[in-house]
Amino acid sequence: MTVCKNIKKLIFKINKAKTNHNSIGFIPTMGALHKGHLSLIQKARKENDVVVVSIFVNPKQFNNPEDLKRYPRTIERDVDLIRDIADIIFIPDTEEIYPKGFGANIHISPLADVGEGKYRPGHFDGMATVVLKLFHITQPTRAYFGKKDYQQYLIVKQMVRDLHLPIKIVGGETMREESGLAMSSRNVRLSHSDKEKALIIYQTLQQGKEIIQQGEQNAQNVIKKMTDITEREEGITIEYIEIRNMSDFLETDEITEDVVILIAAQIGEVRLIDNIEVHLS
Amino acid sequence: MTVCKNIKKLIFKINKAKTNHNSIGFIPTMGALHKGHLSLIQKARKENDVVVVSIFVNPKQFNNPEDLKRYPRTIERDVDLIRDIADIIFIPDTEEIYPKGFGANIHISPLADVGEGKYRPGHFDGMATVVLKLFHITQPTRAYFGKKDYQQYLIVKQMVRDLHLPIKIVGGETMREESGLAMSSRNVRLSHSDKEKALIIYQTLQQGKEIIQQGEQNAQNVIKKMTDITEREEGITIEYIEIRNMSDFLETDEITEDVVILIAAQIGEVRLIDNIEVHLS
Repeated sequence: MTVCKNIKKLIFKINKAKTNHNSIGFIPTMGALHKGHLSLIQKARKENDVVVVSIFVNPKQFNNPEDLKRYPRTIERDVDLIRDIADIIFIPDTEEIYPKGFGANIHISPLADVGEGKYRPGHFDGMATVVLKLFHITQPTRAYFGKKDYQQYLIVKQMVRDLHLPIKIVGGETMREESGLAMSSRNVRLSHSDKEKALIIYQTLQQGKEIIQQGEQNAQNVIKKMTDITEREEGITIEYIEIRNMSDFLETDEITEDVVILIAAQIGEVRLIDNIEVHLS
Repeated sequence: MTVCKNIKKLIFKINKAKTNHNSIGFIPTMGALHKGHLSLIQKARKENDVVVVSIFVNPKQFNNPEDLKRYPRTIERDVDLIRDIADIIFIPDTEEIYPKGFGANIHISPLADVGEGKYRPGHFDGMATVVLKLFHITQPTRAYFGKKDYQQYLIVKQMVRDLHLPIKIVGGETMREESGLAMSSRNVRLSHSDKEKALIIYQTLQQGKEIIQQGEQNAQNVIKKMTDITEREEGITIEYIEIRNMSDFLETDEITEDVVILIAAQIGEVRLIDNIEVHLS
């Protein structure tokens, strides 16, 4: 296992792998690794010769400076966690990725303008920009993204398709605690009682799924019933509940095909997102 | 020489070159090839094993639909012109580059916001987006851009640096007709008398250079004197004359380092640009 802090050293390693015709699996992360990340890394380990994990808290994808400041950073623990399954861990500092004068910005429309994009202006541009740069540096055969960040996964897929990058984007299922709470680096910022409150998110998603599978086709009715559930829980503010077609990620009025229900919620100072896929048949 | 119309066939050829460890020289063009393009292609021929030329009139970089419609298209002549110096000519149609649902956009700030970017909104985004896609497809060792489009050359250089693409960007000097007129695909749209009028552009640039080299340091004074010259010529409208530092492409009030003087002018329905570098010592 090698830890690289600069791009030059990383590329030296990558080129060596390329010369040996090794496949490269890449998992970009912002650290504070949890079982969701680990399942992606394990998947990459099975499918590739060389596994590269990056840990970079990307300032450009934080629309809220407080969120950036409080984002958990646990580098030493992270490295220990994955030293036996990753071959290369890339931990650049901000100047290495964004040197003086950096001014590139990638926008993927319309995906980056809706849903989370509407509530977190600039977030997806910052994400896409750093991911594209990391792709150029690591030249992966496959790159792995968790479906907890569903829209991010779709945007990266579209970016790769639009710009014709020779990379396969692999989605990983959302990992959950036994309670149902989606694994997220931000969970470490939740108090015990916040965690209890947060359970309502996944419970509500499951309820929504059940309502649809029982035959409700009117999206607004589903959202109304879900909102009724969340409003019973104190100390949690729902930012949005959206129902979008899985095929095109458009919001739907009438549910006639497979959909994904997405929730964003605020508990104290922590913002959480989660989603559930609903297959009609 | 191979002509490829689709990406898949091109990539097959490119991968073959890569497997043989061949260097690839790439010249993206919009066709209507002239001596400026040819000098870039010849340069690439000398410096690389495989030379790839693309011909694609990129709709995304035209802010003016009339300009797009009237842009000269001379594909058969173009292919004949370069069949002996290029190995691969890539001539995709619009749907091949921008399939249904395409939504990626690359913005390079602050370079794309000033100069030509101010007068042609969206132009540089469209250019950068297609160039990045073509880079991903052709995977060049070196890519060649003419300095007649000075700002374009700088933007591509910044894009490659910002996003860490493993490509060397090579600039080619502006090729001129004997009269001094900068070679441009749009010149074929000029009547004989328009061409006469257009000579004032380069003459004025040369005058500006001389004024600076004679010691004038006040940029506004230089621009004023240049404007006086162009105003004597009828039938040509100067859109802008700008003096920018070569080091950072910022507009300057006081000329204390090497600069580039840039002109955009309209003659009838044809818009022309040109520039001259001024070295102080």
